[in-house]
Amino acid sequence: MSEPNPSVIVAGASGYAGALAAELVWRHPRLELAAATSRTHAGVRLDRLYPRYRIPVELTELDLDTIEEVDAAIVGYPSGAAASVVAGMRGLGLAVVDLSADFRLREIPIYQKWYGDHGEPDLLTNAVYGLTELEHARIRDAGLVANPGCYPTASLLALAPLAERGLIDSVVIDAKSGISGAGREGGERDSFVSVTENLVPYGAEGHRHLPEIEQELARLAPPGQWSGRVTFVPHRVALDQGLLASCYVDLAEPIGPEGLAQLFAERYADEPFVEVVEAPPGVRDVRETNLCRICAVSIGERRAAVFAAIDNLWKGAAGQAVQNLNLMLGLDQSEGLL
Amino acid sequence: MSEPNPSVIVAGASGYAGALAAELVWRHPRLELAAATSRTHAGVRLDRLYPRYRIPVELTELDLDTIEEVDAAIVGYPSGAAASVVAGMRGLGLAVVDLSADFRLREIPIYQKWYGDHGEPDLLTNAVYGLTELEHARIRDAGLVANPGCYPTASLLALAPLAERGLIDSVVIDAKSGISGAGREGGERDSFVSVTENLVPYGAEGHRHLPEIEQELARLAPPGQWSGRVTFVPHRVALDQGLLASCYVDLAEPIGPEGLAQLFAERYADEPFVEVVEAPPGVRDVRETNLCRICAVSIGERRAAVFAAIDNLWKGAAGQAVQNLNLMLGLDQSEGLL
Amino acid sequence: MSEPNPSVIVAGASGYAGALAAELVWRHPRLELAAATSRTHAGVRLDRLYPRYRIPVELTELDLDTIEEVDAAIVGYPSGAAASVVAGMRGLGLAVVDLSADFRLREIPIYQKWYGDHGEPDLLTNAVYGLTELEHARIRDAGLVANPGCYPTASLLALAPLAERGLIDSVVIDAKSGISGAGREGGERDSFVSVTENLVPYGAEGHRHLPEIEQELARLAPPGQWSGRVTFVPHRVALDQGLLASCYVDLAEPIGPEGLAQLFAERYADEPFVEVVEAPPGVRDVRETNLCRICAVSIGERRAAVFAAIDNLWKGAAGQAVQNLNLMLGLDQSEGLL
Amino acid sequence: MSEPNPSVIVAGASGYAGALAAELVWRHPRLELAAATSRTHAGVRLDRLYPRYRIPVELTELDLDTIEEVDAAIVGYPSGAAASVVAGMRGLGLAVVDLSADFRLREIPIYQKWYGDHGEPDLLTNAVYGLTELEHARIRDAGLVANPGCYPTASLLALAPLAERGLIDSVVIDAKSGISGAGREGGERDSFVSVTENLVPYGAEGHRHLPEIEQELARLAPPGQWSGRVTFVPHRVALDQGLLASCYVDLAEPIGPEGLAQLFAERYADEPFVEVVEAPPGVRDVRETNLCRICAVSIGERRAAVFAAIDNLWKGAAGQAVQNLNLMLGLDQSEGLL
Repeated sequence: MSEPNPSVIVAGASGYAGALAAELVWRHPRLELAAATSRTHAGVRLDRLYPRYRIPVELTELDLDTIEEVDAAIVGYPSGAAASVVAGMRGLGLAVVDLSADFRLREIPIYQKWYGDHGEPDLLTNAVYGLTELEHARIRDAGLVANPGCYPTASLLALAPLAERGLIDSVVIDAKSGISGAGREGGERDSFVSVTENLVPYGAEGHRHLPEIEQELARLAPPGQWSGRVTFVPHRVALDQGLLASCYVDLAEPIGPEGLAQLFAERYADEPFVEVVEAPPGVRDVRETNLCRICAVSIGERRAAVFAAIDNLWKGAAGQAVQNLNLMLGLDQSEGLL
Repeated sequence: MSEPNPSVIVAGASGYAGALAAELVWRHPRLELAAATSRTHAGVRLDRLYPRYRIPVELTELDLDTIEEVDAAIVGYPSGAAASVVAGMRGLGLAVVDLSADFRLREIPIYQKWYGDHGEPDLLTNAVYGLTELEHARIRDAGLVANPGCYPTASLLALAPLAERGLIDSVVIDAKSGISGAGREGGERDSFVSVTENLVPYGAEGHRHLPEIEQELARLAPPGQWSGRVTFVPHRVALDQGLLASCYVDLAEPIGPEGLAQLFAERYADEPFVEVVEAPPGVRDVRETNLCRICAVSIGERRAAVFAAIDNLWKGAAGQAVQNLNLMLGLDQSEGLL
Repeated sequence: MSEPNPSVIVAGASGYAGALAAELVWRHPRLELAAATSRTHAGVRLDRLYPRYRIPVELTELDLDTIEEVDAAIVGYPSGAAASVVAGMRGLGLAVVDLSADFRLREIPIYQKWYGDHGEPDLLTNAVYGLTELEHARIRDAGLVANPGCYPTASLLALAPLAERGLIDSVVIDAKSGISGAGREGGERDSFVSVTENLVPYGAEGHRHLPEIEQELARLAPPGQWSGRVTFVPHRVALDQGLLASCYVDLAEPIGPEGLAQLFAERYADEPFVEVVEAPPGVRDVRETNLCRICAVSIGERRAAVFAAIDNLWKGAAGQAVQNLNLMLGLDQSEGLL
Repeated sequence: MSEPNPSVIVAGASGYAGALAAELVWRHPRLELAAATSRTHAGVRLDRLYPRYRIPVELTELDLDTIEEVDAAIVGYPSGAAASVVAGMRGLGLAVVDLSADFRLREIPIYQKWYGDHGEPDLLTNAVYGLTELEHARIRDAGLVANPGCYPTASLLALAPLAERGLIDSVVIDAKSGISGAGREGGERDSFVSVTENLVPYGAEGHRHLPEIEQELARLAPPGQWSGRVTFVPHRVALDQGLLASCYVDLAEPIGPEGLAQLFAERYADEPFVEVVEAPPGVRDVRETNLCRICAVSIGERRAAVFAAIDNLWKGAAGQAVQNLNLMLGLDQSEGLL
């Protein structure tokens, strides 16, 4: 007899990322959706709230006291609000993937600077930063995975092969994201009228995904080799789903076009969701998929441009959450995502 | 010595239509903008709220007690809230163009059905329905003009030549509007994510612009000839500004392709803002203009299709308001609109 | 021992519909893609021509002489060019779904009026018009299925329940389609610059999908009850994939809101790809699916509005082709389409 | 008696930039449009070819032999084809603004690398690179102005204040352009289906606007201070008109936020078409205007980000052409452009 499928709760399923996570779990061949919860839309069926989805499940209110026989959770709460829910779930023994920033940053003061007080600092110690391709082993053993932000996901996948070799002297990340990345409550700023035919840089003086990128680049670099010079500027573009990170690296030493191509090809040779391609990828090419397409271009002797395209709601949020959950639950990382 | 330019206040200038009205008055060669007011954004400069506009004027709170030497006003308040402001202004002797529905419907019970209580029913008597091309003379003499809704503007311009001749037996109006027509506070429904790559019918069971269209078609028809069979279904399309009314008329009697072409050409021969064209117009062709482009097509013996394209914020709201104000103030109707 | 999967060739796979058909066959769990051919792009890998697709198959030139052990074909040639290819394939015994108009119209003179000479009139006799939900049994037995046009698919699914009961006295179909419906070679008319922020009616004097709709409505109606009064006006909207048919029916007799709802609910109760919904559907809700969502609204006593939304490349072309092929090959109609 | 207005021919007026140039000259209060010519669309009225324009002028074939009493020309031919037409016009004594690249690059070998043979190298000597704000005096005296490319226009306006002070050690320009920048004959690459919901980098290995940017930055720099390290990567975004250059500068010496702000404010204090703003500009804010909005942000001690937004068809092409022509003809630079 086969074992029953693991049972998964998606908490905070009325937001863009949470809703997609619920949809993905619901149609997953090896997971059971125990419940999809919402603080604001309990009583509404998810396929009514999002007619593009097929999940005929009514949102309920989260009640940790009545959770039984649930194995895992994906938490889609806003940063700041997630920590206590995650703590409650961890106390019940659930494996948790948290979509918020609450467990991404290792240093509490840095978290506080960008997000405010942190309610559960003790949990940080065991949380694993869930950029799947860079942390397979640790994610498999983790009880709590901090799902990366959408910008860091694309940026780090673009830069990891260089960072791991100590090749990054300095980097400019010019990132462009579709509007769904801003979440469901954007108001006038995210209205169709404000967004269409527009393209706007923002956060040039500092964006909260910058410390996340810096932290992980420093961790990836060989000991003592990280200089920490990262400029990150996001742009809002008139897209629904899609994110492109254009990364311009001043190389610590020359590597050459062939060396660059080989480095990226080898690094991701075994990764089903990272495709190293020859021409710069368009975000449309990875829409509604968990793929990250990367193209590295040598520019003169000491500079390289690396472009990484993802769907911000998939590989940048809910897709990667399921990918991580698959690993935590002993499944193949691509189950339910192809 | 020339007379000073009339002084105009735009009240409710933070919404889409009110803001454009303020911009148009501000750059108008024969009008002076006395003030642009907002209940919600006082203290904000309009070109900061709408960086696409050039008007460097700070929004203020409306205070009728301090108004002096103002000749006219355009009121951009929501339906229901406009009536009392308009009444106050009329009491001060201002010529007023009201963008709301508060003075469009002649029958109070019909108004109440769609909009709720009416605060100033006495003012209705002297209000003129401001579809400029159909009411030049009365608008010139009016103290209060009810600016038509965007859907009625396009629909009535498309249908008036037929209605005036008693040629409409029945009509289906399939209308499509850009998202700015819904106003500034649309929330999630009007977010880029909800709108892009989408196209949705709404209001098929009844839309509040329907009684406005019915009222005016009945008024335009020769006495005793109006049957009143109008079906009106609006659709939301992924456009910023633009509105198309596709009108399918069952003709009361045959008119033929040549008769149809001649009827429309003659009806609008002297109208600078109505262009009768041979091929169905695209909304892009009239974007950011006060034009209405109309094409009438004969379909068999007893049916005609008439297409009218406008910019919903211009001819469908603020542009027509300035056109009407021009007439009320004794100026050429196209001043400041070309 | 299980039988081998049927082997399918997709001819004309470089166009929008043909390419999607190839992608769908390639990933179909019960079909094998024998070849994807193109007259213009032989030698190119399909996932290079369309980076959004995953099919790593190189386009080849079609050579009927070397076809062996192929069971079926989907033909994506332009109307006029398809007939001879289809004839050759039928001669070899292949089951064929033809995406063109070459076998849709029963009357050669009508075909000639819209498309020019017909090369294979003899094949018409046995061709089945493949609007799947209306022809399950005949499609199962067919050797040649004429896949319906995108506009007729949505329009006929919207109107069939009424037509079959003889309830249509007259109908206006105001249809809106995304740009992919125009095919890959649109040139300047289909450029982003021409399309964005635009919305244009076309073909009001006559569109070649009109005779197709008329033919099938007449066939669906009870004997002697069809009056043939159909007005069909398509509109081009700034969408990639998506088609909405807004159908306004003058009813031959009153049916009432409940009767209308029941009629549609019952008619499509067993159809996995037709969903009768309560609120008018948006095209985004069915994007990248084979679904048709329909909403019928009663308007007064003698009029009904029926809205049908499809993805023009899926249910309006390649998706329905695979649905038909499934039936022809003895598979469940939804295999490979969910 | 006032002098007659200068008479201007627009050659190559069927392309995007040429057509807008014709429209702008036609409605210019101080210029007369002598003719608008086209090699491909002679006989077509411009407002039929571009229904969004108002110019009721029929395109004709260019015949230099019959030109009389024409004072100036704007030439909208493709690079490579323009040189000989310009030479002919210069021979007749016309003041010429050339929209192509034919007279932008000072070094023939560099021109040849990117564009092929150059037919009129002798004319290069007296051609002035027409980035108006950087060359007022020379443009006023010029007989031939090479209108800059769209990317160089935004990039150079963003970088000139720093370049002139020798402050640029190295720069990365990540540029994003709307699709109209690619011209009218884009084919499948520029189709709505290919562009919508997409965002694609291109030309990372080298783009022909790079040498133009390098040439001018070198010229702007104080003698001996230019290191020449420029990385330029353009991106295609789902916009009609609009271009953003995001420039990341490694500063040769610290300047600080206040110094940076002051430098930009002073540099453009007298320029009516350059607005230095505090928040990064959106391209929608300058759409259909000749404005360039610039925001400079200090990032750490030695890096600055400068964002410049223009409408690629206006300030990036036809608008700047008219601005230059104004100066050449002794008019105020902003005549006809406000």
